Amino acid sequence: MQADIIDGRKLAAGLRLEIADGVAALKAEKGVTPGLAVILVGDNPASISYVTAKEKACREAGMASREIRLAADVPEAELLSHIAALNADSSIHGILVQLPLPKGFSERNVIDAISPEKDVDGFTPVNIGKMMIGAECFIPCTPHGILKLVEAAGMDVSGKHVVVIGRSNIVGKPVAALFARKARGANATVTLCHTGTPDVARYTRQADVVVVAAGRPRTLAGDMLKPGAVVIDVGVNRVPDQSAPKGYRLVGDADFDSCAAVASAITPVPGGVGPMTITMLLWNTLEAARRLS
Amino acid sequence: MQADIIDGRKLAAGLRLEIADGVAALKAEKGVTPGLAVILVGDNPASISYVTAKEKACREAGMASREIRLAADVPEAELLSHIAALNADSSIHGILVQLPLPKGFSERNVIDAISPEKDVDGFTPVNIGKMMIGAECFIPCTPHGILKLVEAAGMDVSGKHVVVIGRSNIVGKPVAALFARKARGANATVTLCHTGTPDVARYTRQADVVVVAAGRPRTLAGDMLKPGAVVIDVGVNRVPDQSAPKGYRLVGDADFDSCAAVASAITPVPGGVGPMTITMLLWNTLEAARRLS
Repeated sequence: MQADIIDGRKLAAGLRLEIADGVAALKAEKGVTPGLAVILVGDNPASISYVTAKEKACREAGMASREIRLAADVPEAELLSHIAALNADSSIHGILVQLPLPKGFSERNVIDAISPEKDVDGFTPVNIGKMMIGAECFIPCTPHGILKLVEAAGMDVSGKHVVVIGRSNIVGKPVAALFARKARGANATVTLCHTGTPDVARYTRQADVVVVAAGRPRTLAGDMLKPGAVVIDVGVNRVPDQSAPKGYRLVGDADFDSCAAVASAITPVPGGVGPMTITMLLWNTLEAARRLS
Repeated sequence: MQADIIDGRKLAAGLRLEIADGVAALKAEKGVTPGLAVILVGDNPASISYVTAKEKACREAGMASREIRLAADVPEAELLSHIAALNADSSIHGILVQLPLPKGFSERNVIDAISPEKDVDGFTPVNIGKMMIGAECFIPCTPHGILKLVEAAGMDVSGKHVVVIGRSNIVGKPVAALFARKARGANATVTLCHTGTPDVARYTRQADVVVVAAGRPRTLAGDMLKPGAVVIDVGVNRVPDQSAPKGYRLVGDADFDSCAAVASAITPVPGGVGPMTITMLLWNTLEAARRLS
């Protein structure tokens, strides 16, 4: 067997067209242009590149984007006052603080300052709580993208066994909660594995879908899979590669070749989960603009 | 094998002594008496009996309790204004609205009105969100009691497999999240089963701990267990019994006799989870008073 490749770029491109249509309709009907504010503190190169990509995607979808760039040593109070101003600004519907923040900041304080109505990353406690109880919320972008990728792979997870590896607040825990909901595209039996699981393979070998978000290459290999499983690889790891122009290449948390030989479908890295994350940020920003206008 | 009985009444009694000591210390050190306000809307007999038991437990622990009883047809706005007054009342540290509310009320609106600092049931979205991300919060009372019962059974769940049956917002989902945390008394691999799980036994047969919170008698039976498993039975179901004085008896979600023949430890119904729920309400109220004073 050779797995189908779940093409995140293609799926994202289709969704972005849908989002652009939604943006155009909101402009036409209500004269509202969805606006996303991105706050970047410091000059971490990876963060700059993420922020640039988000802003570009915003503009391409017809949304307005505003970037607020602050020095790494800005007082936290000043950062909080920027957030307060954006909370009150009716032209801004989504607010995103690029993480990680430089040392010395309380990420929790900063995230908590974002108005839940504009928390398009879905990271505030009130939003997470609403997600857990099935109330209207913003689904965090990466988990949301994962749901869409599994659906795109033609897998209806209802009654199936989903195994999630990794218990981060932004991927593993919400993904586990979302797949277990009594809802379309969900209703799965879900097992959450993590660094405290002595034998991850014991669980993954029973899974119809494996979501690996461990932050470690080769966390998942083909001999850990049931034939025909669907693999969603959330990892983005740099491994040294002298033959690559930059001296490294990107790999996921799954050993792609051995997994692809056993799975029925798998997301590549790059080109799988990554493009979906920004797309679902646009989705949430459009949704925020609809709710607020 | 015949399972040990995990005696919830005994464990609860010990914890209530500890709580009473904490209450006395807070009075002595800060002159503060923890105060719990209980709002009861309508005259559902089960709700009246729960509320009475909660108030009695409060007084026995040296806490102050205040009952606000409203007619089933009270306007929701009036209920909300009572909650607002309690939020602002410095002698009240915990606020509890007895559920279910009569028809016509929005439980979500009502719960959302409770100040998170006084949400000792742990039902507000912001509290649930904080629990999910591992921030300071009030752990909902029944899940909190379950953690204590498993600990009392001598089971360290770290690295073990916990299977939870039922995905309610007040038991199943938080229990699953709590056992999966990277924390003492947790760090388990957790599987969440529910009405969408075609073969629950496939999962429970692998479990070191089974928490059954399905609301249905005989959801779990001995032939669904691995020998030596620990069973926590959250169910409280009335089954007709002509020989009982009231014409019914209470049973859990587990078939007690067959489970007790296979498990290493099991909670009885009544006398297992039930007494722990009120105890953890007292625990949270004391904690709220400490934080607020």
